[in-house]
Amino acid sequence: MPLKNKKKMPILHRQNRASAISTDVEIGTIYLDNASSTPTDIRVLAAMRPIFDKVYGNPSSLHTEGQKAEKELTRCRKEVAGFIGALPENIIFTSGGTESDNLAVYGIAKAYQKQNGPASAELRRGNHIITTAIEHSAILKPLEEIQTYGWQVTYLQPNKDGLITADQVIKAIRPETVLISIGYANNEVGSIIPIAEIGRKILQYRKNNADFASTKSSILDFAPKRNRDKIPYPLFHTDACQATAYLDLSVEKLHVDLMTLSGSKIYGPKGSGVLYVRRGVPISPMSVGGEQEMGLRAGTQNLPAIIGFTKALSLVTAEKDKRFKQATQLTKYFFEKIIKQIPDIELNGPEIGETRLPNNLNISFTGAEGDALLLYLNAKGIMCSTGSACSSRLQEASHVLKAMGRTYGEAKGALRFSVGHNNTKQEIDYVMKHLPAVVAQVRMMQKTK
Amino acid sequence: MPLKNKKKMPILHRQNRASAISTDVEIGTIYLDNASSTPTDIRVLAAMRPIFDKVYGNPSSLHTEGQKAEKELTRCRKEVAGFIGALPENIIFTSGGTESDNLAVYGIAKAYQKQNGPASAELRRGNHIITTAIEHSAILKPLEEIQTYGWQVTYLQPNKDGLITADQVIKAIRPETVLISIGYANNEVGSIIPIAEIGRKILQYRKNNADFASTKSSILDFAPKRNRDKIPYPLFHTDACQATAYLDLSVEKLHVDLMTLSGSKIYGPKGSGVLYVRRGVPISPMSVGGEQEMGLRAGTQNLPAIIGFTKALSLVTAEKDKRFKQATQLTKYFFEKIIKQIPDIELNGPEIGETRLPNNLNISFTGAEGDALLLYLNAKGIMCSTGSACSSRLQEASHVLKAMGRTYGEAKGALRFSVGHNNTKQEIDYVMKHLPAVVAQVRMMQKTK
Repeated sequence: MPLKNKKKMPILHRQNRASAISTDVEIGTIYLDNASSTPTDIRVLAAMRPIFDKVYGNPSSLHTEGQKAEKELTRCRKEVAGFIGALPENIIFTSGGTESDNLAVYGIAKAYQKQNGPASAELRRGNHIITTAIEHSAILKPLEEIQTYGWQVTYLQPNKDGLITADQVIKAIRPETVLISIGYANNEVGSIIPIAEIGRKILQYRKNNADFASTKSSILDFAPKRNRDKIPYPLFHTDACQATAYLDLSVEKLHVDLMTLSGSKIYGPKGSGVLYVRRGVPISPMSVGGEQEMGLRAGTQNLPAIIGFTKALSLVTAEKDKRFKQATQLTKYFFEKIIKQIPDIELNGPEIGETRLPNNLNISFTGAEGDALLLYLNAKGIMCSTGSACSSRLQEASHVLKAMGRTYGEAKGALRFSVGHNNTKQEIDYVMKHLPAVVAQVRMMQKTK
Repeated sequence: MPLKNKKKMPILHRQNRASAISTDVEIGTIYLDNASSTPTDIRVLAAMRPIFDKVYGNPSSLHTEGQKAEKELTRCRKEVAGFIGALPENIIFTSGGTESDNLAVYGIAKAYQKQNGPASAELRRGNHIITTAIEHSAILKPLEEIQTYGWQVTYLQPNKDGLITADQVIKAIRPETVLISIGYANNEVGSIIPIAEIGRKILQYRKNNADFASTKSSILDFAPKRNRDKIPYPLFHTDACQATAYLDLSVEKLHVDLMTLSGSKIYGPKGSGVLYVRRGVPISPMSVGGEQEMGLRAGTQNLPAIIGFTKALSLVTAEKDKRFKQATQLTKYFFEKIIKQIPDIELNGPEIGETRLPNNLNISFTGAEGDALLLYLNAKGIMCSTGSACSSRLQEASHVLKAMGRTYGEAKGALRFSVGHNNTKQEIDYVMKHLPAVVAQVRMMQKTK
């Protein structure tokens, strides 16, 4: 079934894109880009609504309006802590996932340097960080920067499915490793990294190497007594932004010292996030000028966003099994139709199953450029993504797919569909009425180019 | 008129505070702490409401939902730019005033170091910043930190009214001065600093010292051609958070290179702010991992907050004259009653008039501790502040009042009342029914202590 306006469709030059982005209004919208951004749940909105003009005090103010706000803040901190098995004082509310990730990297590096002096290649310990080649750029970019200050970074390479093993991590640890930062589930290909196993093995490593610990920890106001004299390195951070809706977030089971959460990926408000920071972890703030958030984030707390985040996390927690099942069914249903109806495709990331996020489908349509597919689908009211939204403007092939060994062509031909809890089989049926033709269309165009 | 529960009122020990904070519910709330935090205007809420679940795309996404969000973002950027006489690309949306202030200081210092190498006392140029002793801690704290990296800071001392003159600023400039950061209006005592005059004189200084300019500016992606080779230093930043509602914000009239705005002080949403950055200003991001906000702030934009901020700024702009008049009348009315009815008081900050914010009253009640007054007034449903909310938990005397030459006792005896556009004369009448007795009461208590 050829597209009606086939000849008029622009070849993908950057400047022509705007004209290609025009939805057929009769169709409506089928939003399959929930890994990028989610609509705010109306129950979340209902929780936030009264706060804006009814609980407007500054939580740092001592009067009743301030205390009302402080009380709500305390309630949220407790609730969020409860959902991840942490203590309230472990919860640092931030403005989102990027800030939490940045704070984890910069904050740990800065605190380490404050205690031990600047990092340098000559140091016996304390100048090394381990991460993976498939992290979000909110981790990769700060790491790039601190390398200019003398830090060294090991980038673990994933296997062809985007997976990283615990053994890889442990083997990469050096006496000078300060931080290990590994995403819980990859945002592009949905691969689930065995964080609990990695965490357990890091803990074991620490025990076996108990002499490797910083002995100066004077900046640790909130360090427990037993830890005051010995900070166990390497610390372990995970970015759980994509995992939040579907996976176990218990920080004790995961054995993580720091964990990033984001509101905007779980039907919470944008501008909301959390960094979990285990007691005793030496970390410095990025923003200063107030003692808010245990001294780790200055600035009046954004209470409506915090309340929205808390509500969203409570819904995700309560409905996790249901959402997992619904997403799994939908994704399987979708993928089965794709394999049957479209030739020459390749699933990027692990097979659908326990090592893959249930809502993620990332597919390379060989011979068709992802950007072209995205825009043609968009014209049919179907929204999906190439790479992550954060870098999608950059027009580069995905660093995740490249790290997984995909060729440039395969990487550029990838589309990510991420279903949400509002998507239905009927929507998938509609998508499949158009996707095969769109793929054929774009493949033909590119062949003749 | 003695307070009924006079004998039971706790002396001010930290742990007893909670019990003192209990409002007489029959009275309701008279909120006179608008410099600390404002309720979100219902018109702002109305503008934000549909965005949460109707315009939920990630503005970086290329599909229609993303582009819808991007379009709104672009509209906001244009509108905000219009209100301050800037270009859309000058507007960096942040998570609030603290972040904007931090970004101005860290960002300018970091960019300078990237271009010119680390700051050090030995450098002929490029290791000096000028500020005042009465800035918000969101400026003072980052400056404290970068001094540990070799930067030098001059703290201009205000006169007894909290004023700083243009001559003071110009005299403090050295060949090595990179940044001058001075608040537009002081958050505690409402003193209005002659930013336009200072800006004009800095500009003049730059012209007279045209050879004093950095010649390396390779990091300036958005620098106009004519500036690529010469960055004029010193740069001029103003924190306009307290000034936004009442004063002229035209960046051309003020001759500022950077300006901080905050949503939560102008009946906008919390978690919203702006840093205006003039074209050609070399500045590095604090948060990285995405190309959002001209590469100066990574992370998915918080569109509801940005739309709320824009609406709040539009209301403030449209109603500036009206709000100025209303605040002036109310503050005068309030102050006249205070002088008539309460002995031994001192107005902190300039006389009510053109060098003082129209909504600010900061008064030292000699012999009475501000904290005690605050809590007794709170028990009557009257909310005000001692110092700024950001530091009010610290139980220290205000650094602003100390810099103005107030004794420790005077500084500790200060209360700030900041009226908002919803306050009425009837409310002031109510306050004045109680304030004289509360002051007398606390004075007596402290005398016998």
